[in-house]
Amino acid sequence: MHEGIRVVVLGTGQMGSRIARLVLDKPGLELAGVFARRTTRGGMDVGRAIGLDRDIGTSVRVELRQLLETTRPVVAIQATCSLLADARDEMVTLLQHGVRVVSIAEEMAYPAARSPSAAEEMDQLARDHEVAVVGTGINPGFVLDLLVIVLTGVCTDVQSITAERINDLSPYGPTVLASQGVGLTEQVFRHRVASGQVSGHHGFVQSIQMIAHALGWNIERIEESREPIMSHVRRETPHVTVQPGQTAGCLHCATGYRDGIPAITLRHPQQIHPHLEGVRTCDSIEISGTPDVRLAGSPEIDGGAGTAALAVNMIPRVMDAMPGLYCMADLPVPAALPGKTGDWQRGGRSGV
Amino acid sequence: MHEGIRVVVLGTGQMGSRIARLVLDKPGLELAGVFARRTTRGGMDVGRAIGLDRDIGTSVRVELRQLLETTRPVVAIQATCSLLADARDEMVTLLQHGVRVVSIAEEMAYPAARSPSAAEEMDQLARDHEVAVVGTGINPGFVLDLLVIVLTGVCTDVQSITAERINDLSPYGPTVLASQGVGLTEQVFRHRVASGQVSGHHGFVQSIQMIAHALGWNIERIEESREPIMSHVRRETPHVTVQPGQTAGCLHCATGYRDGIPAITLRHPQQIHPHLEGVRTCDSIEISGTPDVRLAGSPEIDGGAGTAALAVNMIPRVMDAMPGLYCMADLPVPAALPGKTGDWQRGGRSGV
Repeated sequence: MHEGIRVVVLGTGQMGSRIARLVLDKPGLELAGVFARRTTRGGMDVGRAIGLDRDIGTSVRVELRQLLETTRPVVAIQATCSLLADARDEMVTLLQHGVRVVSIAEEMAYPAARSPSAAEEMDQLARDHEVAVVGTGINPGFVLDLLVIVLTGVCTDVQSITAERINDLSPYGPTVLASQGVGLTEQVFRHRVASGQVSGHHGFVQSIQMIAHALGWNIERIEESREPIMSHVRRETPHVTVQPGQTAGCLHCATGYRDGIPAITLRHPQQIHPHLEGVRTCDSIEISGTPDVRLAGSPEIDGGAGTAALAVNMIPRVMDAMPGLYCMADLPVPAALPGKTGDWQRGGRSGV
Repeated sequence: MHEGIRVVVLGTGQMGSRIARLVLDKPGLELAGVFARRTTRGGMDVGRAIGLDRDIGTSVRVELRQLLETTRPVVAIQATCSLLADARDEMVTLLQHGVRVVSIAEEMAYPAARSPSAAEEMDQLARDHEVAVVGTGINPGFVLDLLVIVLTGVCTDVQSITAERINDLSPYGPTVLASQGVGLTEQVFRHRVASGQVSGHHGFVQSIQMIAHALGWNIERIEESREPIMSHVRRETPHVTVQPGQTAGCLHCATGYRDGIPAITLRHPQQIHPHLEGVRTCDSIEISGTPDVRLAGSPEIDGGAGTAALAVNMIPRVMDAMPGLYCMADLPVPAALPGKTGDWQRGGRSGV
């Protein structure tokens, strides 16, 4: 038996907990520690904090530096936030301690989209400390960017790209439902879009810039729209009731323009119970090019499971990569790590 | 303007010609020379040999060493053969001359599947001469392996994989139609399968071993079957007529077993005019795991265009890679190179 790779997980919310449980489950990995931003979690047993029904004998830590210095992890998975500005301080601390990082912060999927200088700072820090960093997740990080890029690999020419992800918000709690404007009048929905309370999806700008980066395209501007999805029927979850004439969710779209022409169009309608009005959840990609490529799947790939899997499955990729900041298009693709059986550790080349 | 990357193309058949035309078309690439195995092609103008209606002022060469020594290419694309044994001598010559290689020989997609020692030899040669080598193509190399592997990236656990590619042989010539047993009685079809004249698809073993490599699985045996696709209607192409009761093509399947259980099942029915009996061409992947993943597209991705595109789109990947022999799962994914406009050259990292 080889020793497991020492992994720390930042975040004890729904995603952080799920990822930490997955790290515990993988034979090649060792959960070296868990960090929480919420100081009330400090000292709590990690097992309880991440939703196991048992203690595992180590405590949640709320001092990141101290955690890193005492546990000396090889890799960290960041699951504490969505925005780049919010991710930065933890990222700097991790890199300064020579820890490789996989982040599921949406804006870390392509940091230069939000701030070229922050991306440059992280890239430099990663190189100074000889570690690799990547942002991932189901979206951004996979369905509406990496998968699109892979499919352009069979094209001699690409004119335009359209991709869509239709999901179901029914399993989510009040915070997510509020951010998507579920259960409002059209007027209130539009007011909250204007004020930023209804934010829609985080990640379109990152996905569009990642695709453009891979294709060598210059995107001169990105237009976004957030429209209400009005319900004609009653829809209900444990957290919200939508009456006919109220909003079931938010249709968030983004278009990247190249030479004045819509080149990349991404759509992500998010609502509760779409099937009640005959809408099937799905992932769908259409590339107009030589040849045309169309690929779709229904239902959509499970977002929570997919993001947790990607975070863990990218660990071997940041282990093998040269130092620096990467996006998903710049590393070999993730593959499912075996569970309780098998040894997933492998060399970088296939020949030997 | 940067100088184009100097590329030689090996092969002046349908695929080699298509790839050479594509190299001429890409602004970042320069067609440094074309090699043909058929000595009758020696001295023919490259333009005519690759199907342009004009001369381009250089001649097809039939001496590979001489071509390499006079043109000093950076990358070669091998489009001369299907089998590893048949690819080997050219590969050794290319590597000894320090030329990076993208091969579309089916068995080069995962050379160790056919011969671990040949794979090891190429890997060592590539490292000795500090160049990278990869095999690619639509299948093997993409639809039934790389795309499957990418999709497992969202899984925390994979039980089994099923993938299928249904295509239409109608555009193909007599050689391909004969290899798939089109237009025969069932008895003659089975006889030719037994004698090896009806070979079906080249690549299942490579695809299965590539998937297993990426997932860290041990495949203990692979079973293949080649069954006749009997036609109930008359089907006709310029090269063959199939009467009702004759074969329209070959249903070739392969299953890889893991711990005694079918773990990877690949199906590739190839026939002329499948639509005449209501069969839609498609690519389709199903992963049973956590979560389940299903993705499909119809029609299938065009094989000829896709393979040519992949060969050219992988050039930046073998340029950036460390020396050695790679399969598609071990390099960052290909993306469409821009055509006549744009500059596709890019750095390896996204941050800066």
